[in-house]
Amino acid sequence: MLIQDIRDSLFDVSDLNQLKCDLNRLQPVDVGEYITQLPEKQRAIAFRLLNKAQAIDVFEYLPTELQEELINSLHNVQVAQIMEAMSPDERAELFDELPAGVVKRLLQQLSPEQRQATATILGYPEGTAGRVMTTEYVRLQEGLTVGEALSKIRCQDEDKETIYYAYVTDNNRKLVRVVSLRQLLFTFPDVYIRDISSDRVIKVKTETPQEEVAQIMKRYDLIAIPVVDREERLVGIITIDDVIDILEEEATEDIQKLAGVSGDEEALSAPLVTMRKRLPWLLAIMALYIGAASAIAPFQSVIAAVPVLAVIMPIFSNTGGTVGIQALTVTIRGLGVGEVTPRDTFKILRKEILAGLGTAVVLALTMMALSMIWAKPQERWVGLIAGTVMATNTMVAVTLGTLLPMGLKRLKLDPALVSGPLVTTMLDTIGFLTFLTLISVALHVFHLPQ
Amino acid sequence: MLIQDIRDSLFDVSDLNQLKCDLNRLQPVDVGEYITQLPEKQRAIAFRLLNKAQAIDVFEYLPTELQEELINSLHNVQVAQIMEAMSPDERAELFDELPAGVVKRLLQQLSPEQRQATATILGYPEGTAGRVMTTEYVRLQEGLTVGEALSKIRCQDEDKETIYYAYVTDNNRKLVRVVSLRQLLFTFPDVYIRDISSDRVIKVKTETPQEEVAQIMKRYDLIAIPVVDREERLVGIITIDDVIDILEEEATEDIQKLAGVSGDEEALSAPLVTMRKRLPWLLAIMALYIGAASAIAPFQSVIAAVPVLAVIMPIFSNTGGTVGIQALTVTIRGLGVGEVTPRDTFKILRKEILAGLGTAVVLALTMMALSMIWAKPQERWVGLIAGTVMATNTMVAVTLGTLLPMGLKRLKLDPALVSGPLVTTMLDTIGFLTFLTLISVALHVFHLPQ
Repeated sequence: MLIQDIRDSLFDVSDLNQLKCDLNRLQPVDVGEYITQLPEKQRAIAFRLLNKAQAIDVFEYLPTELQEELINSLHNVQVAQIMEAMSPDERAELFDELPAGVVKRLLQQLSPEQRQATATILGYPEGTAGRVMTTEYVRLQEGLTVGEALSKIRCQDEDKETIYYAYVTDNNRKLVRVVSLRQLLFTFPDVYIRDISSDRVIKVKTETPQEEVAQIMKRYDLIAIPVVDREERLVGIITIDDVIDILEEEATEDIQKLAGVSGDEEALSAPLVTMRKRLPWLLAIMALYIGAASAIAPFQSVIAAVPVLAVIMPIFSNTGGTVGIQALTVTIRGLGVGEVTPRDTFKILRKEILAGLGTAVVLALTMMALSMIWAKPQERWVGLIAGTVMATNTMVAVTLGTLLPMGLKRLKLDPALVSGPLVTTMLDTIGFLTFLTLISVALHVFHLPQ
Repeated sequence: MLIQDIRDSLFDVSDLNQLKCDLNRLQPVDVGEYITQLPEKQRAIAFRLLNKAQAIDVFEYLPTELQEELINSLHNVQVAQIMEAMSPDERAELFDELPAGVVKRLLQQLSPEQRQATATILGYPEGTAGRVMTTEYVRLQEGLTVGEALSKIRCQDEDKETIYYAYVTDNNRKLVRVVSLRQLLFTFPDVYIRDISSDRVIKVKTETPQEEVAQIMKRYDLIAIPVVDREERLVGIITIDDVIDILEEEATEDIQKLAGVSGDEEALSAPLVTMRKRLPWLLAIMALYIGAASAIAPFQSVIAAVPVLAVIMPIFSNTGGTVGIQALTVTIRGLGVGEVTPRDTFKILRKEILAGLGTAVVLALTMMALSMIWAKPQERWVGLIAGTVMATNTMVAVTLGTLLPMGLKRLKLDPALVSGPLVTTMLDTIGFLTFLTLISVALHVFHLPQ
């Protein structure tokens, strides 16, 4: 790809002809990446080399901070052109991040219909279908033939997000049918659309959460889905490229939450942003750990008497935590990709408990063997208790790792809230308490040698 | 959606008319789900109610075990029809999982061209573009006009995976141009295709890894991408619906590996499968932990003398581990979605170290405060050492969490190999060793009270 060649060649302000030629021939997303890594002073210069159509496409691929930068440095006329030509969903996303004064000025420069489109989209809450959708789709009235429909599609503006589906609405703008371009091309022109399309349309409402939209489109292999309001009127469509971004965002969020990171951190975030997103969780973990440590604190004399406990406890903690996180991760991911729902709780719990029993036995025996290695001969009984508690903690771990996310999901909360560090902390508290209590009891009841 | 109603109504073998009607009207993926949850005896009965086109579509949505079950229970003629009509990539995926004898029989019943298509796809390694692609695409020869191209497309078989892109090849089948249906519809019929399309085509090779294919399609917002062999001949295409599945598979794999699960476990896997996928890691973690425990074992007398150490060490371990996992997760995900590459290692390390310094200070102070709470007055100096080691361990954690995955990626290995439990184990070993050594030194050098 050419972008590598451009990147390495010098940016020569006195002779930009070659660069201008290259930039107008490359794919917009590549040009956007090139401009992003230029020093600030050169960005506006490079952008002005783009012809009108390319400029609009490239602009949509730039990060928000750079879009704002260009809005301030380009000529008003060019900015107004770009704003007008942007697809409504991209424009809404940008306006959402700009300062209010700038947005007001830009809105005034828009045509009435684009202003209306933007206001419509911004009127919906973030994370819902209404906010992700675009208002540029192909709309047909009822009663057309295939031939008439194709003519109408040919006369549409070229800026429709997709022409591969056409949406048929009645006089009240209610969505009645969908027909694909494929169906239209493969059918004789005088056939009526109503005879080749179904009136049962797969659609979403404006308030549908974006993850749900993504799952529906994935399930039915759609490249676009219509969005209707409460009166079933067609207000927009969501296309597959937005859905791919949504699916990836959701996966990243889940992954990060499981690790105890706030969910929208990026590998190239600034250091202060990174700190701000991670410290809360770290301090919360430490605070919760006061609970676990408080469980150990009263037993300090026991540990002083049987110091091999301090060697064994970390193995406990780490292994039990891993068991819990394994169960937690598989369950949360299963919920996230729509493979299971809270209705499957019993099925999954049953599987986890059965697997957990087998795992518990193996881990208990290993734990006992390891304890024997470091314990002095008179401390060997510790290994038996360690193995038993390893087994019980394993069962607690798989149960917690399944029930907690399922419970949260049923309460309509985000199951990834139950992040990894939280589960390991709970398991440690329970594990340490059980272990040390049993050891204390054994020491007293059986007057065991120390 | 109707599937709920069907699921709840009784399966009445004596009167299947209503069910037959419903099943033929529902979306294939929903019918597939319905049949999957039926008891075994009823599945073949339900499947036979489907008309021919619906049967083929539904079959592609069934899990492999059920596909095999139906192949054995349906009439040979119907099986042969379904096999012939399946899209080549779905058929290849199925044949890959069936016993060799069954595959041989089914291959013999295929038409020569479908047999060739299947053999072609199965000839490529799993996880590459060649294995994911389908051979059913629209191919045009060079030199056509828009009008001629549209006529040709109309005459294509209706089983082409997508007709929204048409691929122009020369006499040697080399891919020369791509043109979209959108371009064809919006252009006058007598214009030549070569005048409206570029000869710089975005494509992938048969050996391109599937994750890379997914990233390219996502980047350029394509709904299909052509696959060429080493001589640049067009052999197949990959469509966006396959890519969505790939992106989700890859995310799930990363999430699971970070938790120490083998990567392809499902929430509804059988208990034995679950055990088999998780136990290796659990035992490996325990084995590695022998390292960490061996770091503590020699210090048992120190712990017996200063038992508050046993209270402090888990806080250490847990918090340090969380810091490491946070850095690890963000870096691995950044690599996974193509946001960063090993070339950005220094940039990310710089960010992590800066954020890590701030974090280290906060955590160290908190650690010192907490240690003071449980320590007896004469043990308060332990808090200072605990805070210091908390700070150093934090810096080690962010460095490990960044450099390990980057290093693996540069060696062309899978960065998620460096899973969470592995990193926490390493951090614990280093942390415990440092902490206990410093404590010992302090005890001896300063003859501190115990």
